[in-house]
Amino acid sequence: MPKTIPENSIGLVTPKTCQFDHPLQLECGQTLSEYELIYETYGTLNADASNAILICHALSGDHHAAGYHSMQDRKPGWWETCIGPGKPIDSNQFFIVCPNNLGGCKGSTGPISINPQTGKYYGPDFPIVTVQDWVHAQERLAQQLGINKWLAVIGGSLGGMQALQWSISYPDKLEYAIIIASAPKLSAQNIAFNEVARQAIISDPNFHQGHYLENNTRPTHGLILARMLGHITYLSDDAMGAKFGRELRNDTLYYNYDVEFQVESYLRYQGRSFADHFDANTYLLMTKVLDYFDPAHAFNDDLALALKAVQAKFLVLSFTSDWRFSPKRSTEIVNALIANRKQVSYAEITAHQGHDAFLIPIPDYLSIFHAYMQNVGAHL
Amino acid sequence: MPKTIPENSIGLVTPKTCQFDHPLQLECGQTLSEYELIYETYGTLNADASNAILICHALSGDHHAAGYHSMQDRKPGWWETCIGPGKPIDSNQFFIVCPNNLGGCKGSTGPISINPQTGKYYGPDFPIVTVQDWVHAQERLAQQLGINKWLAVIGGSLGGMQALQWSISYPDKLEYAIIIASAPKLSAQNIAFNEVARQAIISDPNFHQGHYLENNTRPTHGLILARMLGHITYLSDDAMGAKFGRELRNDTLYYNYDVEFQVESYLRYQGRSFADHFDANTYLLMTKVLDYFDPAHAFNDDLALALKAVQAKFLVLSFTSDWRFSPKRSTEIVNALIANRKQVSYAEITAHQGHDAFLIPIPDYLSIFHAYMQNVGAHL
Repeated sequence: MPKTIPENSIGLVTPKTCQFDHPLQLECGQTLSEYELIYETYGTLNADASNAILICHALSGDHHAAGYHSMQDRKPGWWETCIGPGKPIDSNQFFIVCPNNLGGCKGSTGPISINPQTGKYYGPDFPIVTVQDWVHAQERLAQQLGINKWLAVIGGSLGGMQALQWSISYPDKLEYAIIIASAPKLSAQNIAFNEVARQAIISDPNFHQGHYLENNTRPTHGLILARMLGHITYLSDDAMGAKFGRELRNDTLYYNYDVEFQVESYLRYQGRSFADHFDANTYLLMTKVLDYFDPAHAFNDDLALALKAVQAKFLVLSFTSDWRFSPKRSTEIVNALIANRKQVSYAEITAHQGHDAFLIPIPDYLSIFHAYMQNVGAHL
Repeated sequence: MPKTIPENSIGLVTPKTCQFDHPLQLECGQTLSEYELIYETYGTLNADASNAILICHALSGDHHAAGYHSMQDRKPGWWETCIGPGKPIDSNQFFIVCPNNLGGCKGSTGPISINPQTGKYYGPDFPIVTVQDWVHAQERLAQQLGINKWLAVIGGSLGGMQALQWSISYPDKLEYAIIIASAPKLSAQNIAFNEVARQAIISDPNFHQGHYLENNTRPTHGLILARMLGHITYLSDDAMGAKFGRELRNDTLYYNYDVEFQVESYLRYQGRSFADHFDANTYLLMTKVLDYFDPAHAFNDDLALALKAVQAKFLVLSFTSDWRFSPKRSTEIVNALIANRKQVSYAEITAHQGHDAFLIPIPDYLSIFHAYMQNVGAHL
């Protein structure tokens, strides 16, 4: 726990919630009659509401993007690196909003919420939402907050997909879209990894076809496996090598199935601590949101066509060692924008940290991001 | 089932077994008092036993490398592409030997064998063997077959590690070592993938700490997950993309947890069919054999030092899209040999098929391999 909160942190923050009673029509055909979104804000909305920035979270992220909930918190929000006073997304200048998405498990309506129609947990019956559904829900939140147009919508990974979708769904409701370590759709390999993670959860005997909460249990082993696997894809081979190499946990080899190498111990720990605070149905849902995202699909698989009507200015960032969403995937977005003569800046940042690089204070990354954001805020 | 067996196949083959009653001291400290190896041979041993070639199999391979066991077989042996009359490893010229390794589940002594000391399945009590142990066992098999020196020891992936270990353990007992799509040791990422596979098996409630056979069950779900995951690492992202892309299984999206994309269906099928005929304890064991392989470890992590005394001539082959054991890993071996002024040929073959490329009839691969093998057999 920090004795003092660092000076460049937004400091103590308190989440807010917003109730929505107007039904939300979902892409899957179902309707959510009512729902709640939990969100955090950092900074102050200016008089003409022109300095609002939406932060979209990734698979295991939530609304707690920056700052601390209490002086006892061991860790700040997940994007503390980039959000705060004097940081790329500067809370002295911008009004920053970060909601937990629908289907999440950190306070927004999702599988662990009570379905008002049945009085029971939604569990596996929570409808499968999509990036487009999230964007619609976020747009309603913007209305509630008195924000007609975002100055920028920003996200990494699955968050970047939301920023891209915003530019398509509401072309006149954002000035800038910032898409980091993302892709215009999953590859077959991406889907394959998701499928193994899902099968790990679903084949856990404690899954009970998703109704584990009613059975007072949780598919912890499956969720641990899913997270261990995910974690491998977030790191590069080089990053893992640099961090662990073949370092042994003990001095000698034991020739048994206990942990021999540090990397095994690390992965087990990561898996367990994640499974302690995340919901399995939400995890399943998030992987499906990723799988389904494909804005070009309705346009004959022509991404340029899908992006024809966008009006936002774009910053696209990728990291050299990211093999989950490699730089090549980012350039697909960039090229589709260029084909439409849209305004786009692109940087491929040299970094050995893999996909996780977007969460890490890499000097080149922060300085490019910061410079761009100063431009974004120049007319405020 | 083939109505006729292809002309360039070795045709019908019958496995043989060899009993060993002399105890084998293992690297882990334990001793196997007696054991059996099952193996196949193709071609004829010449008068001075100078045309013998040892084929070493990989993780899920076995002794059935080429030909058919019956006219009803749907598929030939696993390396039919490379072994047979007129093929790179030409059965008209060479006497080819392929054993199932110790710890295997296809006929050699392993976890599904009965432990003579207890009268029960070895199961999880089968000792953890290493590549070095395998090489010792293979050397004893050579003695039994009247082979003092292999003309060549050949293997892909984990098989290549055995070929490398042969050159270190018995420098004067092989003329050539051919190492394909392999590595001198696993990376942290490689170990991490193995660890997830192991945890999938071990956390299956039917695993019973490895004593599942006594409980008349099998950890099928865990083994399916392990294989699905492994399979992703055998294919390249490009190969998966070319094979499946984001092709849907049905015409429309269903927005549920059933199979939506072809790649999901394919992976589930691969997992299930593998789990039907492979033993989980053997799978665990094979992943540990991979993890532990590191001939440079005893030489201060200096691979060149480990290879100082080798006498074999080497062919090392890698494939551009192999991300399990990338070309960079092969060049580690090549560079260590060059540092010792050993004779080594190296080719990096352009192929989009990933790690599995070594099993696939890629023209450049076969022609390079064939040309080299003609040279190997030139003096016969």
